[in-house]
Amino acid sequence: MSLKLYYAPGACSFVPHAALELAGAAFEPVLIKLHKGEQRTPAFLALNPRGQVPVLVDGEAPVTQIVAICLHLDAMFPQAGLLPAQGMARTRALETLMWMNNTVHPTFTHVFMPAKFTDDPAAQASVKAHALGRYRELLQELEGLVAARPGAWLAGAQPGVLDAYALTLLRWGGFAGIDPTTLPQTWALAQAFAALPAVARVIERERLQLNVYKPTVA
Amino acid sequence: MSLKLYYAPGACSFVPHAALELAGAAFEPVLIKLHKGEQRTPAFLALNPRGQVPVLVDGEAPVTQIVAICLHLDAMFPQAGLLPAQGMARTRALETLMWMNNTVHPTFTHVFMPAKFTDDPAAQASVKAHALGRYRELLQELEGLVAARPGAWLAGAQPGVLDAYALTLLRWGGFAGIDPTTLPQTWALAQAFAALPAVARVIERERLQLNVYKPTVA
Ligand SMILES: N[C@@H](CCC(=O)N[C@@H](CS)C(=O)NCC(=O)O)C(=O)O
Ligand SMILES: N[C@@H](CCC(=O)N[C@@H](CS)C(=O)NCC(=O)O)C(=O)O
Repeated sequence: MSLKLYYAPGACSFVPHAALELAGAAFEPVLIKLHKGEQRTPAFLALNPRGQVPVLVDGEAPVTQIVAICLHLDAMFPQAGLLPAQGMARTRALETLMWMNNTVHPTFTHVFMPAKFTDDPAAQASVKAHALGRYRELLQELEGLVAARPGAWLAGAQPGVLDAYALTLLRWGGFAGIDPTTLPQTWALAQAFAALPAVARVIERERLQLNVYKPTVA
Repeated sequence: MSLKLYYAPGACSFVPHAALELAGAAFEPVLIKLHKGEQRTPAFLALNPRGQVPVLVDGEAPVTQIVAICLHLDAMFPQAGLLPAQGMARTRALETLMWMNNTVHPTFTHVFMPAKFTDDPAAQASVKAHALGRYRELLQELEGLVAARPGAWLAGAQPGVLDAYALTLLRWGGFAGIDPTTLPQTWALAQAFAALPAVARVIERERLQLNVYKPTVA
């Protein structure tokens, strides 16, 4: 069965991208340039009519939604420990994964693409400023979760999808003027995760700089 | 092991509430009056510092996030078929569940509580109007998924969490001036789901009217 991942550098597709490498899966990475609008070509819209990455194609079947893709990969590669296998450890990890996906990630979307929420430029500026304040709070909340983590990694003893999402959300903070080193536990986790050979391959393929914060922009 | 569900009538907690009844679980329902701010009492914040329903308490452990709760219940009551058990049917169901949770549900939050996204009243009005247009489109997209469903219910042969979420999202549309009968397939699905004895118990306990659309408000 062939696997293909459509991803954009530094986008949320980093999460399944890292999951595939951590699982040691054979897959074909396909680069989609969002700034060139490649997510809106007829070929891409045939895979995902919602015009977003990530898309995993398993055989002939395109699968969208980060969490659905990660659960699909977790079922396919149970030995990889992308999430705790069962019980309350799994439920806790899913709870954090959901919060990242339905709360933290969309808050960044309000900072980065306020035009998705109103056509009025003044209202966009107001939405963006509000979301930025909220994003800082949410990264602080994430810092608390990292500090209280049950093992070396966010879900316990093994690195997995939570660590990949934490790295992504912290990295995005840099674009929003949030210095990652002010969230020391999350920053240390992101650096340790990025240093894993499997994850280093993803960082290299996506040509990512881990700390994109620029003091002058803040 | 004791189960307790903290819910608010007509809120998104309807989804795990219906799941518990469909699974035939013994559980204690605990009513939280959101309009009275009961989600912000110290006792409730001790369960969920984010101040939101639903919360499932399994033994001593509070679990938040609709999807994490539903996956926890699905693992606990596999015979209930709350989601397809495995394979691509499960992945497809999770994909739709994620979209409902991270896209459709938050769009309604922009209609219902625009003050969560900006402090400026003019910007709130603009966000609300934009979200309403988007919510109509998303319910149309849901109508397409219902029309193309692989069985009698949204995930196949058995009623489950997708049907509960579809009912909730369609019902919310009524508050936003969207007549549910203009989405005939979803409306028929919601009515059939509401008529199941297990779901009828939830509707009665929450004292819900299925169609809350008022033509004069539109
Ligand atoms: N709900 C989706 C969100 C995916 C998403 O936000 N994708 C962004 C990149 S991080 C995207 O493709 N944006 C392009 C666009 O909106 O045009 C998921 O969980 O997978
Ligand atoms: N991300 C949460 C969202 C839960 C949510 O939106 N809860 C709403 C009711 S539908 C709530 O409790 N709102 C009360 C408030 O925000 O004060 C989940 O998926 O469970």
